[in-house]
Amino acid sequence: MLKRTVFFVSDQTGITAETLGHSLMTQFDGIEFKQITVPFISTVDKAREAVRKIDLVAKQEGVRPVIFSTLVQEEVRDVVRQSDAFFLDFFDPFLIPLEQELKTQSSHAMSRSHRMADTHAYATRIDATNFALANDDGSVVRDYERADVVLVGVSRSGKTPTCLYLAMQYGIFAANYPLTEDDLESRRIPAPLEPYARKLFGLTIRPDRLQQIRNERRPDSRYASASQVTFEVRAAESLFERHGLPVIDTTECSIEEISSRILDRMGIERRLRP
Amino acid sequence: MLKRTVFFVSDQTGITAETLGHSLMTQFDGIEFKQITVPFISTVDKAREAVRKIDLVAKQEGVRPVIFSTLVQEEVRDVVRQSDAFFLDFFDPFLIPLEQELKTQSSHAMSRSHRMADTHAYATRIDATNFALANDDGSVVRDYERADVVLVGVSRSGKTPTCLYLAMQYGIFAANYPLTEDDLESRRIPAPLEPYARKLFGLTIRPDRLQQIRNERRPDSRYASASQVTFEVRAAESLFERHGLPVIDTTECSIEEISSRILDRMGIERRLRP
Repeated sequence: MLKRTVFFVSDQTGITAETLGHSLMTQFDGIEFKQITVPFISTVDKAREAVRKIDLVAKQEGVRPVIFSTLVQEEVRDVVRQSDAFFLDFFDPFLIPLEQELKTQSSHAMSRSHRMADTHAYATRIDATNFALANDDGSVVRDYERADVVLVGVSRSGKTPTCLYLAMQYGIFAANYPLTEDDLESRRIPAPLEPYARKLFGLTIRPDRLQQIRNERRPDSRYASASQVTFEVRAAESLFERHGLPVIDTTECSIEEISSRILDRMGIERRLRP
Repeated sequence: MLKRTVFFVSDQTGITAETLGHSLMTQFDGIEFKQITVPFISTVDKAREAVRKIDLVAKQEGVRPVIFSTLVQEEVRDVVRQSDAFFLDFFDPFLIPLEQELKTQSSHAMSRSHRMADTHAYATRIDATNFALANDDGSVVRDYERADVVLVGVSRSGKTPTCLYLAMQYGIFAANYPLTEDDLESRRIPAPLEPYARKLFGLTIRPDRLQQIRNERRPDSRYASASQVTFEVRAAESLFERHGLPVIDTTECSIEEISSRILDRMGIERRLRP
């Protein structure tokens, strides 16, 4: 397999460069990328230091690295561009066309994305995260009144990480409710959730995958047995169907995809964006 | 203030379009952007539906919206491009140059970013998230042996959300330890942390901001009083200094920035990237 080293170089956190860079890399199946993030390159001196690091890799590997950059300051970008690498800046092709369309000069100030410009947005995110932590599996807090969505599913179907992701990325208030054996046997919506039926979203998962996940947690337990897992998943799916809940199968989905599909299906507006 | 509506249109979650789009928007101070995410546009039919929505906004507002897209399939992109909007695709300027540099055809398959391609990466992320939740403030689990980093600071200095972000975005195992009054009075590293001194990272915060945060949580309490907050912050900073811990002031920082700076200062390699 071909190998190439990729540097994400940014004057800020590097998250934007990592995100678009990663999307682009997934389009090249045959190549194994080694990834290095070089954040906070905000001065010419730091840029020179980064170039030394990149040039060293170019020399060691005998093939020039790829640089994905989000550098707004021209003098910094000019230094990084001179390294012995294939250089792509992610702002470059878009800022001039946007300036023309918006009839506004861009500030050319250091990237302000992912900095605390907006105290309100920050507070929303922290509130939503604390809400997810407080309204998690088996907790006593059940503040469904405030919830944008309540995820329902069997243990280890992906509820907790999805709630946290919805909170941290989008400022969404997501609670979750683990279906108990009583709930599963009755195939009814649990009583505390009844008034909030329209906020419910079901998570399901393929039994073999669930068994694998539970086995890592509690090997050879009843909890992780094929019969128990199959019973729970079937009963949960039948409960979802009986009550007409929207459902997503999380088996092949990333947390990002689960989260984005939930918002899409429920028509919930994102309060924040990454 | 000028207002413009922005659509993030993607064949997948829309996260890449949101992330770069948001970075670009922060460069235009004078404009208020209304943001709408249109994910999972994976067929020509869905693209036509999206175009109807976008054209309606163009008509209602009398000014064409901006589209930031990450659409890999040409036939889908061609439909969206025909809407009454200013269209920028974020893959377009980069795929051909990358194909040339990497001497490899890109797959032109639907974006695979943010999908569960890699079960190992997914498991790492879930493990790290569970680790952060288990090793959080005041919990009984203190598995510092496995931790990549242990955040130390007073209550509400930003430890929990930073640990969760490090876990979810980067697969980093981050524990946190809340400094007690005994710790603060002695100005010593707490005994359970002593063997892990090299993993410690201090979070501090401006007393007035901390007071504001605590007041929202417990109004008019001793916990939120000016004297208590000032004592705690000063004592924590003096402890950090005395033991030579790296420190970040979280007052003006986003969680992204805090996280990225911690990894940078500690020289910790990201296990995953967004």
